Amino acid sequence: MKKMVGKQSLEFENPPFIRSSVSIVGKKEGEGPLGQYFDMVVEDPLFGQNSWEESESYFQKTAVEEVLKKANMTKDEIRYLFAGDLQAQCIATTFGLLDFEIPLFGLFGACSTIGEALSLGAAMVSAGYADDVIAITSSHLGSAEKTFRFPLGYGNQRPLTSSWTVTGSGAFILSNKTGNLKIRGCTTGKIKDYGIKDAMNMGAAMAPAAADVIYQHFEDFGVGVDHYDQIITGDLGAVGHDILIKLLKDNGHDISSTYTDCGVAIYDKETQDTHAGGSGCGCSATVMSSYITDRMYKKEWKRILFVPTGALLSTVSFNEGQSVPGIAHAVIIEVAEL
Amino acid sequence: MKKMVGKQSLEFENPPFIRSSVSIVGKKEGEGPLGQYFDMVVEDPLFGQNSWEESESYFQKTAVEEVLKKANMTKDEIRYLFAGDLQAQCIATTFGLLDFEIPLFGLFGACSTIGEALSLGAAMVSAGYADDVIAITSSHLGSAEKTFRFPLGYGNQRPLTSSWTVTGSGAFILSNKTGNLKIRGCTTGKIKDYGIKDAMNMGAAMAPAAADVIYQHFEDFGVGVDHYDQIITGDLGAVGHDILIKLLKDNGHDISSTYTDCGVAIYDKETQDTHAGGSGCGCSATVMSSYITDRMYKKEWKRILFVPTGALLSTVSFNEGQSVPGIAHAVIIEVAEL
Repeated sequence: MKKMVGKQSLEFENPPFIRSSVSIVGKKEGEGPLGQYFDMVVEDPLFGQNSWEESESYFQKTAVEEVLKKANMTKDEIRYLFAGDLQAQCIATTFGLLDFEIPLFGLFGACSTIGEALSLGAAMVSAGYADDVIAITSSHLGSAEKTFRFPLGYGNQRPLTSSWTVTGSGAFILSNKTGNLKIRGCTTGKIKDYGIKDAMNMGAAMAPAAADVIYQHFEDFGVGVDHYDQIITGDLGAVGHDILIKLLKDNGHDISSTYTDCGVAIYDKETQDTHAGGSGCGCSATVMSSYITDRMYKKEWKRILFVPTGALLSTVSFNEGQSVPGIAHAVIIEVAEL
Repeated sequence: MKKMVGKQSLEFENPPFIRSSVSIVGKKEGEGPLGQYFDMVVEDPLFGQNSWEESESYFQKTAVEEVLKKANMTKDEIRYLFAGDLQAQCIATTFGLLDFEIPLFGLFGACSTIGEALSLGAAMVSAGYADDVIAITSSHLGSAEKTFRFPLGYGNQRPLTSSWTVTGSGAFILSNKTGNLKIRGCTTGKIKDYGIKDAMNMGAAMAPAAADVIYQHFEDFGVGVDHYDQIITGDLGAVGHDILIKLLKDNGHDISSTYTDCGVAIYDKETQDTHAGGSGCGCSATVMSSYITDRMYKKEWKRILFVPTGALLSTVSFNEGQSVPGIAHAVIIEVAEL
């Protein structure tokens, strides 16, 4: 019954179950290689709402409704929400989750937020502070491009290093009762700044944070690559994917044969014109709650290290010439009955 | 040894100590009625930096350095940071805490964030997931006005309902070892939307959330106003202060004789021209870590309910015509040896 492990990790004494999970994505995600795995594909990018922001909130709202339905639960059975998004002041979360009237811990870890939400949610359940909680994040191409780069209507050219923000929301019910998967532990990441100043190259900004937390995870638990059937980062994309492999190889760990990045997996590089791949708070959340859980339910992967990655910038920090630091949080997810 | 209490509350089995706390504020806050209580008053609003944003980060950085110094600790002894601010994508936190290389849980609850940070930090320490953590938030008049309303240089008129964002940062070390105060428990708030659409009247937007969480706190623990020497809200200001008293009176609780609002307390209404009072992530954090802890150290107040309050808006949500919902988190703080 360990709790604190090494410098940055926890091993839960009562590993919480993932009781149910739901992935709701947009049309482009539905047309990609993982299309068959998503619970719901929404053809209308506005999801029947009036703005990109309202649409993103509606993705979160629908994800909570669906994840409750899947677990045959009501909102009154959920003690806490752990939630966040990429918009300024986490406003997609505010308006998406308002109606549920569930106590909320608002989180911000950029695109790593679902890793933070799963870590804190699992800790609270394991400690006996809740029976069931929901971890949820979202992103939306329209709201994210407007927030961080250019409004879609501007039609700017995107360099090959740029990523494509996933439109979607992924939600998980963590429970002390039942489920096919368990959260065994977590390694919480530090902010890492390698001085990247290119808002169109998030992969390079985040890869050092992912390398740092994965390396520390191995150190803390005294394990290596072979301990996991798959190591899965959030949204490094093609550029960050290669940098991560190199950084870890330089530090004695070759993850190349068992490594997946959700941002690389979600779009078809040849036909979908997304350049470096997918990104956003919704990227790792929707891939985890669809393709990855599916492979785990089938016991093709029995133990994974899930490492959502985030780039910490705002338009203000960027326009004031600040670099783009990264952060990443690692979560150990196992098949409940190994 | 209770843990979950009622619908929304926790009572910690091992109530963490507040090992040390630090308040660092700007010139105007130093000139106010609580001036003598702050640990550091910074005369230069830029704190020697190049922008309001960098200044706010420097407030956070200095607060962590000072709170460690006060506890005679090093950064390596801190397992987690629980931190947030008001700027878009929590960028004051990113650049303020970057150099410490401590695992970070980034939080967003608008001006209620210090309540969220103390709740989660205390939960993690109580559960045995950390020995020592830091909870910290900040705000800055320059960065907040630019973010939410008008840049200071524009010189716009401020209505009497508007509040004045506190420039400052408050930091707390929560510990399982030693300290004069303890965090006994918490009640986590829900988002409450009463349809307020005036970004210059945050007090009215937040008061319903404060009333809701305080009412639920009384219900969960089966206590009333007389259980606390003082009930202290974050930054409702003069307008929200009166609304809260009325809302709770309508629901059977008269808090008027033992109620303080940090936003009302921090400035002199007659001479400092701040209109409704102070606000911001730094308001309740700096008043708690100065004036309130001082009164508790002197045992004038032995048990308080600390209720930081937040208004959930962004310029985008506001300009798109959305309302301003509120959230508030209640934390029970006691003298360690009652």
